[in-house]
Amino acid sequence: MIAGIRRCGIRAPQRATVASRAGFVQPLPTMKIPEILLIETVHQPGSLARVLQVIADAGLAIEHLTALRRDQGRTLWEITLEMDEEADRSLYERIAALPIARFVGKSDRVFNRHRGGKISTVASLPINTRQVLRDVYTPGVARVCLAIQKDPRAAREYTALARTVAIITNGTAVLGLGNIGALAGLPVMEGKAALFAELVGINGVPILITETDPARVVQTVLAIEASFGAIQLEDFAAPECFEIEQALRQHLAKPVMHDDQHGTAVVALAALKNAARYSGHDLASSTIGQIGLGAAGTGIARLLRACGVKHLLGTDRNPAAVARLESLGGEGTTLEGLMQRADVVIATTGVKGLIRPQWVRPGQVILALSNPDPEIEPLVAREQGAAFAADGKGINNLLAYPGLFKGALEADARAFSDAMLMAAADTIAALARGDELVPDPLDRTVHEAVTAAVRAAAGEATVAAG
Amino acid sequence: MIAGIRRCGIRAPQRATVASRAGFVQPLPTMKIPEILLIETVHQPGSLARVLQVIADAGLAIEHLTALRRDQGRTLWEITLEMDEEADRSLYERIAALPIARFVGKSDRVFNRHRGGKISTVASLPINTRQVLRDVYTPGVARVCLAIQKDPRAAREYTALARTVAIITNGTAVLGLGNIGALAGLPVMEGKAALFAELVGINGVPILITETDPARVVQTVLAIEASFGAIQLEDFAAPECFEIEQALRQHLAKPVMHDDQHGTAVVALAALKNAARYSGHDLASSTIGQIGLGAAGTGIARLLRACGVKHLLGTDRNPAAVARLESLGGEGTTLEGLMQRADVVIATTGVKGLIRPQWVRPGQVILALSNPDPEIEPLVAREQGAAFAADGKGINNLLAYPGLFKGALEADARAFSDAMLMAAADTIAALARGDELVPDPLDRTVHEAVTAAVRAAAGEATVAAG
Repeated sequence: MIAGIRRCGIRAPQRATVASRAGFVQPLPTMKIPEILLIETVHQPGSLARVLQVIADAGLAIEHLTALRRDQGRTLWEITLEMDEEADRSLYERIAALPIARFVGKSDRVFNRHRGGKISTVASLPINTRQVLRDVYTPGVARVCLAIQKDPRAAREYTALARTVAIITNGTAVLGLGNIGALAGLPVMEGKAALFAELVGINGVPILITETDPARVVQTVLAIEASFGAIQLEDFAAPECFEIEQALRQHLAKPVMHDDQHGTAVVALAALKNAARYSGHDLASSTIGQIGLGAAGTGIARLLRACGVKHLLGTDRNPAAVARLESLGGEGTTLEGLMQRADVVIATTGVKGLIRPQWVRPGQVILALSNPDPEIEPLVAREQGAAFAADGKGINNLLAYPGLFKGALEADARAFSDAMLMAAADTIAALARGDELVPDPLDRTVHEAVTAAVRAAAGEATVAAG
Repeated sequence: MIAGIRRCGIRAPQRATVASRAGFVQPLPTMKIPEILLIETVHQPGSLARVLQVIADAGLAIEHLTALRRDQGRTLWEITLEMDEEADRSLYERIAALPIARFVGKSDRVFNRHRGGKISTVASLPINTRQVLRDVYTPGVARVCLAIQKDPRAAREYTALARTVAIITNGTAVLGLGNIGALAGLPVMEGKAALFAELVGINGVPILITETDPARVVQTVLAIEASFGAIQLEDFAAPECFEIEQALRQHLAKPVMHDDQHGTAVVALAALKNAARYSGHDLASSTIGQIGLGAAGTGIARLLRACGVKHLLGTDRNPAAVARLESLGGEGTTLEGLMQRADVVIATTGVKGLIRPQWVRPGQVILALSNPDPEIEPLVAREQGAAFAADGKGINNLLAYPGLFKGALEADARAFSDAMLMAAADTIAALARGDELVPDPLDRTVHEAVTAAVRAAAGEATVAAG
């Protein structure tokens, strides 16, 4: 059973849940998009049944159905289907052709939920009297300004700075979509900000930088960094992402994190710890092989080395990426050589089906993390004798970044340290229940626990990550 | 009666309200700061009375008083006083010296109301199920990103862009405090953002730029402007503010406004229209004299000229400021010369008492707008025969900027035009009630009306301001 799907009242199909363990978000290998049809029927026995039979004949299940209104002997139904990209939309015409039905149109829940944007700013206290106005605006505010001018650290207490995080992108590597530009990346940044707000009460501020030159990106961020308590870099392409993050970490005495590297690494490490535990592997003494050494792969490699992993193999079609792994103490190899030697395989290539079934060795642990399509289907890997196999559908940065930033800000940390990242990974791993790899990302208690662990680690840690 | 003070249940002293007309925020000429004393008394008859007598002896009125707790035969009182900067704080020692009282400490309502900051980000819809998460985050969000990549204008509909305004400062001219730096200006920017949220539901985003070179400020704003639907420039010093605003207006096809120029000008024009009406002057044919030609003075001069004012005099100790006025079609003169010739005088110098009483001519209209201390007290000007005199305490940008930006964004305006500014001024002037110069800035209906007027003017206007 899949937690998220169960909540919607629908059982996940068995075929997909055999291979991937509970805790993954998506039970099916292809991307399902909800579509909402608006269909009007004559109000007489059997008319709705005929519409539903057409939908059934198209091989589609009903996710939700409700009557929106009834008048003039007609009923308007809202019918939600889960359709994949390739679904046959001639269905609409076949419904319209029924004598008792009219296809009124489509509604799109995803777009509906984006209308007007996903974040709103509110005043932290109601400004409803002249007295409050005079305290929070002129003339009262002047005294607070002067207090901060005298001691800049007062800004931590008397402004929202210590709970404000910039979510910065230039749109060069948005999701799996590639370089779609900063503006097209805004819905992702707003989504992250909405989740910051929902999960840990942080003000996330989407900042779109329309520059691709790393030096200009860094210069821009440095010019505005005073506005934020911490900086989350998001969806910057490799290898520029490394240079940008490193420069900002050098210049700034506040938490800076490229989420695609370190957020991913934290959640992958948590999943890996549980996968190793379930399959009886000891990570530190295992040979771990990484297929794909982009931002995510490099972040994972760095964190694995920091955790004491000695035998780290890696492969990537880009020689510079392999060199980066070697600079971290790993060993470059070929894809087939890696599959032959690794006890644990982590793939982050974005290439569907890259791992051939015949390469899988009995007893291997395989995390094929690319979304939406993994490098090998977990079911197939298990059939080939893998001790454990999972895809990346539950390996969601969302488990890590809210608590990482909240903990770092609460501790007034000057940077993210490896100890903070490892504390987050340990906490996430420990909170997985039953046979989950990682816990439910919407579980607030997970984020509270990560926050507390990161804050504690920040207090102890002195060595900065990266 | 003063609206804001009346709401707090306290009558304004007569002496100050004789001169300034209703609608002004502060009835007293010096800045009053609320102080909250925490005082513990023995729970017996007369102990509170003795404390209050000490306060009375210091010449201070009680604004608010409440018992916070009572235990062990003692009561903890919270006593709020309005104290000015020069108040005698030996009062605290005299209270502590009473045998029945203990001075526990001070609370500061202004700082209390700033604690943790004044704005919060919230998710526009609750993200409480896996289904919502999949719609607003991965995988659903990818389709919205692609829709925006295909047609950037979709960002207006499916992100918060069309209701998001950057509030940008470099802290070089914050309130009347001068160049206190960007970080120290953050409480003002947060205040503006909180008021944007409260009054018109706009997401205001404080952006602190730690650059003073105009070219670098412009470069930074251009690098991040894609994040915002409109740009409010705030508390930039003159003359750099003119160069920065002009460059941004040239480069950007979205609303850009330096509030200290144009927001001030709109509210000043509204007040001036009503002052002229009350005193029987016709603005277009009057000789208007401006004392002080900084950001505010220049903004006012520009708008007066756009309104058809033909006879515009100005004076400033900075020759470049006078030259700026002349480039707008005004005439530079001396302070005394201006006072001799102007029918209507507008002062925005920040210099307390600059206008000597003997310069006032019978029948003049005088708006001495500097805060907290005007160039001449309205009472004094009236005694000298001024037909109308007021200070700047009610002339608050807050009346203009929320509706200006909301209206511009709703109209999808490519810039602020003079028609939009004038529509806002007319609306604000028309909504003043009784003998107010301008209406209550916390009245939501004012902001709705300004929004509607600006939106309508944006639809009609083609000529850009500036």
